[in-house]
Amino acid sequence: MQKLKVVKIGGNIIDDEQTLLSFLEAFAGMASPKILVHGGGKLATKLATQMDVPVKMIEGRRITDADTLDIITMVYGGKINKSIVASLQGFGCNALGFTGADGNLIQSDKRPVKNIDFGFVGDIKSVNRDLLVLLLNQGITPVLSAITHDGKGQLLNTNADTVASEVAIACASTFETELYYCFEKKGVLSDISDEQSVIETIDTETYKQLLNEGVIAEGMLPKMTNCFHAIEHKVHKIGIGQTEMLFKDQSLYTTIIK
Amino acid sequence: MQKLKVVKIGGNIIDDEQTLLSFLEAFAGMASPKILVHGGGKLATKLATQMDVPVKMIEGRRITDADTLDIITMVYGGKINKSIVASLQGFGCNALGFTGADGNLIQSDKRPVKNIDFGFVGDIKSVNRDLLVLLLNQGITPVLSAITHDGKGQLLNTNADTVASEVAIACASTFETELYYCFEKKGVLSDISDEQSVIETIDTETYKQLLNEGVIAEGMLPKMTNCFHAIEHKVHKIGIGQTEMLFKDQSLYTTIIK
Repeated sequence: MQKLKVVKIGGNIIDDEQTLLSFLEAFAGMASPKILVHGGGKLATKLATQMDVPVKMIEGRRITDADTLDIITMVYGGKINKSIVASLQGFGCNALGFTGADGNLIQSDKRPVKNIDFGFVGDIKSVNRDLLVLLLNQGITPVLSAITHDGKGQLLNTNADTVASEVAIACASTFETELYYCFEKKGVLSDISDEQSVIETIDTETYKQLLNEGVIAEGMLPKMTNCFHAIEHKVHKIGIGQTEMLFKDQSLYTTIIK
Repeated sequence: MQKLKVVKIGGNIIDDEQTLLSFLEAFAGMASPKILVHGGGKLATKLATQMDVPVKMIEGRRITDADTLDIITMVYGGKINKSIVASLQGFGCNALGFTGADGNLIQSDKRPVKNIDFGFVGDIKSVNRDLLVLLLNQGITPVLSAITHDGKGQLLNTNADTVASEVAIACASTFETELYYCFEKKGVLSDISDEQSVIETIDTETYKQLLNEGVIAEGMLPKMTNCFHAIEHKVHKIGIGQTEMLFKDQSLYTTIIK
């Protein structure tokens, strides 16, 4: 089975132009097939301020109203996605940018209103694996912004970590798929105050232990849920750490396996 | 040879939500293969005002500086392109949005500075026909915003009429290609003050006559240059008029043939 790498980057890489360019140059040099998923960054907040669109929060959760969705579509689907694609082309990587609406790549359901109305937020229902495979086999590198659609004309804001894991799961029957979550820390830490306390390997058993012991910090919990969901659906391996885990052989990061 | 329709729409359709949705529903119902090219509209100007980015003009020509390019990328490549794609998906048309950077679809050269520095403006150098044919044969409808790239990491603003004609030319060796320019008038008028004075057919001979007689209004000249460039490069037929020329059998519009 051919290998595929699905790489997710977040704001800590996107927000600094030089950091982003260095990453993209290294990513372009990585062996294909590969898929890049990107989150947002501070640019959306900056644009919202310029456009006088207030950030709406209910019980500490961000709400995506129509104006906010427009900003996300402009910034994530437009500026960030297209800048990344153009830069990758400049580094010799044939990138093609997507929202989930493009080619019906990722369809989702608008999150039902229970206690909170999150607005235009989508929970992923299906991924168009055939299109991804077609493009990957042509040497094309899909670059995905975290926007999906409901198939009825509505774009929906979607969590980028979840986009990455669902895309990896969809591809796992065709490729030996590895999923990499790049973020600001070196990995999952056993001591949140010690940057070097990286837990090098977590499997389903040790994950339960860590949960029982309360070792995994609250911010890591949704990411870990995504990871074990992917591992249970045939994703071969997951890496969590800084981008160097992709490019340096002996770098320290957290590996998640079944 | 299979038929292909390349359709270009401009601000008069994009700026009004209901007009755009009606058009997209009808376009979705048109036989495939087909390609949609869209221009900008007033949203970019509105966003520029909100962001305090002044419109720069030199000798009556619009200049694309870095801030303006960002706005174009957000509005044309993001909001407008993705809204169109999502709506088409809702109407059952499998659309996929592009800038020229995506899949290296359209490469251009930054316009050299002579008397005027137009800024980040690109003149088209090549179109990736193989990718278009691959997608069209999969039943996918490419939706193109008028942004290209230089292959070195730089996005470039490009005239949407020219994007449409160059894409039609690139496809003309594979498909019997028809190009349709939709705009606010019923066609090329012999009397600019009479909306009904549509010249129904223009060929190379009559075009020369009309030019000599000064019949073609100044605003039409760049469009006509694009048209005859396309006709000379194997595009089968060009229509200029209102969108109903695509959907109604006996509508009045201008046909351009060799």
